[in-house]
Amino acid sequence: MNLSALFNLTYGIYVISSKRGNKFNACIVNSVFQVTAENPTIAISVAKNNLTHEFITESKVFTISILKKDTPLPFIGKFGFKSGRNIDKFNDTKYDLGITGVPFLRENSITYIEAEVINSTDVGTHTIFIGKIIECENLCKNEPLTYSYYHKVKGGKSSKNAPTFAQQSAENIIIKEKKEDLKMKYVCDICGYVYDFNIGDDIHGIKSNTEFKDLPDDWKCPICGVGKKQFTKLNKIGG
Amino acid sequence: MNLSALFNLTYGIYVISSKRGNKFNACIVNSVFQVTAENPTIAISVAKNNLTHEFITESKVFTISILKKDTPLPFIGKFGFKSGRNIDKFNDTKYDLGITGVPFLRENSITYIEAEVINSTDVGTHTIFIGKIIECENLCKNEPLTYSYYHKVKGGKSSKNAPTFAQQSAENIIIKEKKEDLKMKYVCDICGYVYDFNIGDDIHGIKSNTEFKDLPDDWKCPICGVGKKQFTKLNKIGG
Repeated sequence: MNLSALFNLTYGIYVISSKRGNKFNACIVNSVFQVTAENPTIAISVAKNNLTHEFITESKVFTISILKKDTPLPFIGKFGFKSGRNIDKFNDTKYDLGITGVPFLRENSITYIEAEVINSTDVGTHTIFIGKIIECENLCKNEPLTYSYYHKVKGGKSSKNAPTFAQQSAENIIIKEKKEDLKMKYVCDICGYVYDFNIGDDIHGIKSNTEFKDLPDDWKCPICGVGKKQFTKLNKIGG
Repeated sequence: MNLSALFNLTYGIYVISSKRGNKFNACIVNSVFQVTAENPTIAISVAKNNLTHEFITESKVFTISILKKDTPLPFIGKFGFKSGRNIDKFNDTKYDLGITGVPFLRENSITYIEAEVINSTDVGTHTIFIGKIIECENLCKNEPLTYSYYHKVKGGKSSKNAPTFAQQSAENIIIKEKKEDLKMKYVCDICGYVYDFNIGDDIHGIKSNTEFKDLPDDWKCPICGVGKKQFTKLNKIGG
């Protein structure tokens, strides 16, 4: 059994939102498919330890925002690698409210779908929610972000709650980077972001040619927000 | 509500196979996702009126063959637009048997996944089967066929059992073809294949510059196999 074969399945990248009273939360999933054409329904798979899972279970409503191809990695990081238990993900996010009062994204999203849960299936670490679609609209013309593009072109990684998490490893990163200069690269153990001496970190105003050791002590991963201690020097792993 | 917004969901194209005793059958689906990483499980959605649905319900086993990017349309047509009630789809198909005795494709497939049903959810016209993955391997190196590529580049259509069927219509075909010469094009009402005077039909040895009316009376759609009466002249629809 070669679990990396499962990488050949095709996925998109979606932000699933829900609510608890006046509080909103959202997370990233790659597992969404339409189930029926008549009385259209949609299935999503959400990890049980996501706060969004609690919100959907209680409110029975959710929205799906389909991310656009050129969505910045830190935006994906906010929804995919940070927990709503620690931050308010909608505090600095443009959104509108759907019919049910659940938010949908107004930035980096090309389409939103709103659904009411009519059924759910317990699958161990995850639940598949079946939703009756009550609204769906396109927000702008753009191509959708696919998981393949996110993974291969943008260098994005799966969060620990993603079903595809097990197939990725530090090894994959090393293989990809082998032919390049590894000496000045550090990889985030949590989300796989690579800090590159030759590039710096635009988001935090770090210029190129800044060595990792010279980054401020309070510097954080621009994608998932963990500190410098969570980074590993690539040439150490690669040998 | 704009149901065509659902076209922005990302899908692959898969052949789902199952068995009843010594008889095999298979159909095309676009709805497959991995559900859990630990004890890996996979979800598929299959229309109830597919023969494959009967076979999976009875045998509780299925395989998923991930089609390669350049899979010929007639191959997709055999599995997606013809019924195992009328033909033996494996008669002229290269395949091997998995651990459970269910076939998986040995042509046009890059990966196979074999699973045992551990749960299922009734969703009206379709059933979502949850399978425990018991085997998965890559068969060759190639890119997977995505629904987007099948639809936009190859001009493929959804079968009437596909959840995405409702969003496509003759109108879409007309819009796409508007700027071209429609006069010598006929569209199959069943699968959307377009017979083009300028191209002919390689599969049946019909040379270019053969008018539709001059095709043999027993000529059949190279994708779904229906006769000439099921074709509509495009310029008549387009006005």
